[in-house]
Amino acid sequence: MKTGAGRFFEDYRLGEVIAHAVPRTVSGGERALYHALYPARGALYSSDEFARACGLKASPIDDLAAFHLVFGKTVPDISLNAVANLGYAEGRWLHPVWPGDTLRARSEVIGLRETSGGAAGVVWVRTTGLNQHGEAVLEYVRWVLVKKRGSGPAAEPVVPELAKAVPAEALVVSEGLRFEGYDFSLAGEPHRWGDYAVGETIDHVDGVTVEEAEHMLATRLWQNTAKVHFDATRRPDGRRLIYGGHVISLARALSFNGLANAQMIVALNGGTHANPCFAGDTVRAWSEVLDKAETGVPSVGALRLRLVAVKEGAAPFALRGAEGKYLPEVLLDLDYWVLIPR
Amino acid sequence: MKTGAGRFFEDYRLGEVIAHAVPRTVSGGERALYHALYPARGALYSSDEFARACGLKASPIDDLAAFHLVFGKTVPDISLNAVANLGYAEGRWLHPVWPGDTLRARSEVIGLRETSGGAAGVVWVRTTGLNQHGEAVLEYVRWVLVKKRGSGPAAEPVVPELAKAVPAEALVVSEGLRFEGYDFSLAGEPHRWGDYAVGETIDHVDGVTVEEAEHMLATRLWQNTAKVHFDATRRPDGRRLIYGGHVISLARALSFNGLANAQMIVALNGGTHANPCFAGDTVRAWSEVLDKAETGVPSVGALRLRLVAVKEGAAPFALRGAEGKYLPEVLLDLDYWVLIPR
Amino acid sequence: MKTGAGRFFEDYRLGEVIAHAVPRTVSGGERALYHALYPARGALYSSDEFARACGLKASPIDDLAAFHLVFGKTVPDISLNAVANLGYAEGRWLHPVWPGDTLRARSEVIGLRETSGGAAGVVWVRTTGLNQHGEAVLEYVRWVLVKKRGSGPAAEPVVPELAKAVPAEALVVSEGLRFEGYDFSLAGEPHRWGDYAVGETIDHVDGVTVEEAEHMLATRLWQNTAKVHFDATRRPDGRRLIYGGHVISLARALSFNGLANAQMIVALNGGTHANPCFAGDTVRAWSEVLDKAETGVPSVGALRLRLVAVKEGAAPFALRGAEGKYLPEVLLDLDYWVLIPR
Repeated sequence: MKTGAGRFFEDYRLGEVIAHAVPRTVSGGERALYHALYPARGALYSSDEFARACGLKASPIDDLAAFHLVFGKTVPDISLNAVANLGYAEGRWLHPVWPGDTLRARSEVIGLRETSGGAAGVVWVRTTGLNQHGEAVLEYVRWVLVKKRGSGPAAEPVVPELAKAVPAEALVVSEGLRFEGYDFSLAGEPHRWGDYAVGETIDHVDGVTVEEAEHMLATRLWQNTAKVHFDATRRPDGRRLIYGGHVISLARALSFNGLANAQMIVALNGGTHANPCFAGDTVRAWSEVLDKAETGVPSVGALRLRLVAVKEGAAPFALRGAEGKYLPEVLLDLDYWVLIPR
Repeated sequence: MKTGAGRFFEDYRLGEVIAHAVPRTVSGGERALYHALYPARGALYSSDEFARACGLKASPIDDLAAFHLVFGKTVPDISLNAVANLGYAEGRWLHPVWPGDTLRARSEVIGLRETSGGAAGVVWVRTTGLNQHGEAVLEYVRWVLVKKRGSGPAAEPVVPELAKAVPAEALVVSEGLRFEGYDFSLAGEPHRWGDYAVGETIDHVDGVTVEEAEHMLATRLWQNTAKVHFDATRRPDGRRLIYGGHVISLARALSFNGLANAQMIVALNGGTHANPCFAGDTVRAWSEVLDKAETGVPSVGALRLRLVAVKEGAAPFALRGAEGKYLPEVLLDLDYWVLIPR
Repeated sequence: MKTGAGRFFEDYRLGEVIAHAVPRTVSGGERALYHALYPARGALYSSDEFARACGLKASPIDDLAAFHLVFGKTVPDISLNAVANLGYAEGRWLHPVWPGDTLRARSEVIGLRETSGGAAGVVWVRTTGLNQHGEAVLEYVRWVLVKKRGSGPAAEPVVPELAKAVPAEALVVSEGLRFEGYDFSLAGEPHRWGDYAVGETIDHVDGVTVEEAEHMLATRLWQNTAKVHFDATRRPDGRRLIYGGHVISLARALSFNGLANAQMIVALNGGTHANPCFAGDTVRAWSEVLDKAETGVPSVGALRLRLVAVKEGAAPFALRGAEGKYLPEVLLDLDYWVLIPR
């Protein structure tokens, strides 16, 4: 049998390190496609000149593009037989990704727990993306519900302790980054760190109606092989499930309107794909400021943000219903840290 | 309020200069996407070798891609609340855009006139695209009908005097450009400047049926944020209006068949988006030679062309109906100057 | 008449060499688009680092992208009035294509034969793709059924003798290529040359449902101008015929699952587009090992493979029906040589 059926729950061993396949060199081509696929406008990721004025050597590849590239590599080993993507934690961006860099990924199995029914189990992995110099460019924990191959007895469950959020002290400010000479006019909005208050909510106004061709182009670009995104015969309703990361990038790009200066994503504290997204859905987004922090660089502040993607028909800033369940219009509830000029 | 609602008619002041946000570095990625989105085949914009044989240092980014990039930057400041894009004039391409260049844009308000009803007003702006060296790469005048915020009294109207067409003497031939060694065989057609006669019309034969994903990819790539192109909930009929520039690039690319040697666009004399274009429309194009001129470079001639984009069902070379109104099948009536070997 | 109607059967002369128009410089943009359009994961074509570890100077442009680029250039001269694309033979990849290379193409007419009815004729051409150094990067024979302009008398038929398959001795291993240090873990599968047996069949498992926007983006990127791929008004059923090369690339990319180490395509022995493919079809693929060979480089082996693309509903490994005709679900039957680590 030459083809892989993917791993089942029993195939994971605690402490095991999986080297994921297919390294990837990125170029201006990936950036152009990212900007064609999402209404991305962050000046630091659009202009080499702007990035240099902020102390970087060039405009990096978008942080979420780097995340998707690393995530995509893990799919054949981690989530090909996943029933659900349950959560993210302790995600950190450690190093910018430049055009010309080559990324690869590895994951360590840090937790395993069978479900009560015994037909599946939760697998926790800590994934690291590395560049051609062996430097970690990003890392994150993800846990997924994976089918069991058989019905063997349950091993001792190990559930990792994960931080509720990445502490502000652990945020990595890229070498050289400074916002002293930041051009707010070129960036698109005047709002700086001091203008945002914890608890503040922002409706990002714009919406995008999603097409099948778009989410498939994106998901393929990240070499994500999950069948359900591409093969309309996989679901009884004949619909292709949109990769959750497509919704993340779409919502983040929409959040430009109100958060134009929230430039560099530095941490992923958590995230839930609350409901599936399909072609034809019109996606909108809103944000809530969860926390604020200073960094080691005086001109650089950090905002902890909740980013929520919703479908048409969602009530303003509504997230959960009476029993604490996500409302059916909510697609994504993401918790992340971002750097912004002070 | 962190999000911008866009400017209304009252927000513009005569003589004001608006620096538009989000500079953009272009690369081979933008070129590849341009050629995937439009059936573009101009040899000068497809091959570095061909461009060098014409005296340029490399193949520039397509002239209309540069135009769309600059135009896109102006949308949040100029046309977010525009009811209609009324016209273009005095457009000139001044400098090629090379991969690696970073473009930004600024606009000067050169005219303001309230409509008779008083609910809206016409705003004229002269927009300039600049590269990272501060050189103007292109400029054009555009006027749009913008909603009024309130119903205050009308200011004194100022309507700029605009040239009916850019005079041939004002056309800029890029430094080094020469067509002495031009390879007509590699370019695709034998027709040179002398083969075209004023009044001649050319049916470009080919047609392209437009898809939602395509026009949205294009419009996002230019970072054009006008909601009506992306959000199917904005119009009562649930359709997304296709960015007029998408139709311009589509028609121009279709015009290769008959105008393969009409290589560099050097001026935009005027243009009207006569009727809206929607996904599912099959777009065709025809051209009319309006004028001919020599340039300062003996091997380089100029043609002034009318480029008309039509939908399926249009009568050959038909433009206007009995009362002088554009026929319903006409999408675009564009008047431009282009350089061609003599 | 400025526009070309394309050549008819009578317009070809035996021995004639046609220089095709519109040279093309490729970049990382073409690679990114190729990977967004197809689920391509070959490590050698994804990572500069991986390619360098295999002795190449960088990751080349995908072999089939180079093929489509060259093929696209021939369309206006060879197949604009083609009724059918009848076959391929004697295809060889001779030199990798690197980002920055400029490709052009020329074809020699090597065979002509009128059909019995006299309304059309078969034209055989040997096409060569060349880079900016004048090196042949690939060559192949293609024959197409072309309409006749009139009903003149038939010329003496000349049918070229073509090899049933490129002999293993004629396969070109790129300069420097070696698989001694090949990282099977990074490449995605452990199977090497010795693990494949002649006669073995592999079901590649995955499927992709095709969208109009995708095949048009691809076909335009290769500057293929055949109207039937873009213009929904060309066929009575209002459908756009998908470029056969799109199906080739799709099937080849799907074959990663089971053939991840079958890295470099070195020969095209033959190929048939058995049935048309349309948007909405879900495409799957299977392969059969037809032959094996050593090469002049000890670490590099060659596999001769049949690659079959099918639509949803195809029986496993079924190719032809009772009368030897391709089954209606079969889209493509391709015969090629590929290099794989020994």
